[in-house]
Amino acid sequence: MNRQTFELLILGSSAASPTSERNPSAQLLNIAERFFLIDCGEATQIQLRKFKAKFQSIDHIFISHLHGDHFFGLPGLLSSMHLLGRKQDITVYCPEELKSVLDLINKVSETTLNYTIHWKFTKNDGLNLLFEDEKVEVYSFPLRHRIYCTGFLFKEKPLPRNIDKFKLDKHKVSTADILLLKKGEDVTNSEGELIKNSELTIDPPAPRSYAYCSDTIFNPPIVEYIKEVDVLYHESTFLEDLQARAKKTFHTTAKQAAEIAKMGNVGKLLLGHFSARYGTLEAFLDEAKPVFDKCEICFDGKKVKI
Amino acid sequence: MNRQTFELLILGSSAASPTSERNPSAQLLNIAERFFLIDCGEATQIQLRKFKAKFQSIDHIFISHLHGDHFFGLPGLLSSMHLLGRKQDITVYCPEELKSVLDLINKVSETTLNYTIHWKFTKNDGLNLLFEDEKVEVYSFPLRHRIYCTGFLFKEKPLPRNIDKFKLDKHKVSTADILLLKKGEDVTNSEGELIKNSELTIDPPAPRSYAYCSDTIFNPPIVEYIKEVDVLYHESTFLEDLQARAKKTFHTTAKQAAEIAKMGNVGKLLLGHFSARYGTLEAFLDEAKPVFDKCEICFDGKKVKI
Repeated sequence: MNRQTFELLILGSSAASPTSERNPSAQLLNIAERFFLIDCGEATQIQLRKFKAKFQSIDHIFISHLHGDHFFGLPGLLSSMHLLGRKQDITVYCPEELKSVLDLINKVSETTLNYTIHWKFTKNDGLNLLFEDEKVEVYSFPLRHRIYCTGFLFKEKPLPRNIDKFKLDKHKVSTADILLLKKGEDVTNSEGELIKNSELTIDPPAPRSYAYCSDTIFNPPIVEYIKEVDVLYHESTFLEDLQARAKKTFHTTAKQAAEIAKMGNVGKLLLGHFSARYGTLEAFLDEAKPVFDKCEICFDGKKVKI
Repeated sequence: MNRQTFELLILGSSAASPTSERNPSAQLLNIAERFFLIDCGEATQIQLRKFKAKFQSIDHIFISHLHGDHFFGLPGLLSSMHLLGRKQDITVYCPEELKSVLDLINKVSETTLNYTIHWKFTKNDGLNLLFEDEKVEVYSFPLRHRIYCTGFLFKEKPLPRNIDKFKLDKHKVSTADILLLKKGEDVTNSEGELIKNSELTIDPPAPRSYAYCSDTIFNPPIVEYIKEVDVLYHESTFLEDLQARAKKTFHTTAKQAAEIAKMGNVGKLLLGHFSARYGTLEAFLDEAKPVFDKCEICFDGKKVKI
């Protein structure tokens, strides 16, 4: 069975300062051809080109917090969208102060964009619905970092029930009733017979979900927001020997990220936001896997099917 | 004879929107181990790493104007300098409004840099001395663009006269008098004999110079500022068939840039700031060379010894 797309592209896997191998934070999430950009570190527009993503398809941008490695690519991306002829609106979900930065940049560069930006400001009070359409919903939730910061939770809407077409013909159900069946209701056929929903339909696949947690100190209360997600991205800026530094700078170690994944009983853990001090990254898996085995390292260009 | 270094590294050769091959404007100029960064488009810090330039050696940054492709890399570069432990001061020469953008970004990200930025604001009134030490001087001069914009002129100071060491010994000149000779003065030796400067010294090489002109409409009055420079970088956003568009957007064609180089009798012309619409760039040389033959195309990573 072909399910709708739910695919993540890692555009940047570095913490604060980029390296020759790793760009700062940015991810492109495609759910049923809705393209969500999550954070937008410097050179995100260059990464989008490099990995052949169509950046004019992005209609929703989510910014977790206002450290530069999570938003310094936004002015350039919005500017290139404008220069390359964008007309359709875009929505930016972000901390409120970001708008003033973009407004000032447009003022000093005497730029008026050819399209409209809708600004939706995140809040710091639990799970907050930011976006919803017939297929997807997106929430923010609070993270604990040095400055105001939120994570994001992306969920498919429950899918309609799958109909057994062979049985449908046999039971002489009208086309009009198919919608009711998909919603899970029983129907009466053309011969006045009551047909139980369970006779004609089977369970659809469970809705999938993805949670993004960057940047944050090790913080078990977030498990409430990310529990049972299919894929969890959790920052792991440091290895265990720098746990004290992680705590001081409100970041997480790989092992701590694995503990969150385990507590949340998630399907898979993606580690990212690696400090520039690390060249190779095997040690992150060595420390995380004993705690939570279904764990992978992010690298720029990595694709994850959810 | 080993002359002091005077070398340019092209970090970005694209106009407004980067391409997969070309980054936005930025150049690193090394004169006698003073490192001058000229413009700082998005991802300049990544280009510096890619081309193995030591970015903590940069003590002076020159920003021509406030279109994003000339400064969107500055917040990230200044932030990485901070994160990687910079302590020494830096000076940014730029339009005045840039300071307010950086101040706001530092405010919203709750960042206090570990080093001091000295801001020196450019002016729009002729040749203006921005920086000077014993070896180098740097000037700004006005360009004509859609918004306030300046070019930059980098000049070696006149070098001391070269002393013929063999003759020096023969004439018994004291060590103390060597400085006078280097300055071009005559001296009296230990035997009371007057020694003409011309007997002991030869002319030093002529001071070299580099001029940076981006962005600007075709504007012959700038020849006054760039005449006789060894190397001229002049923007050439478009080819001749888009001359009307060049005029309308206050840019220059390759042929027009060659006309400026010819009028200025410069040593060499570097073309850059190419519109993203062009893939290959041979046509820029085809149009410029018939007017001014000593002409080269910039590409990211190109080094030019001056």
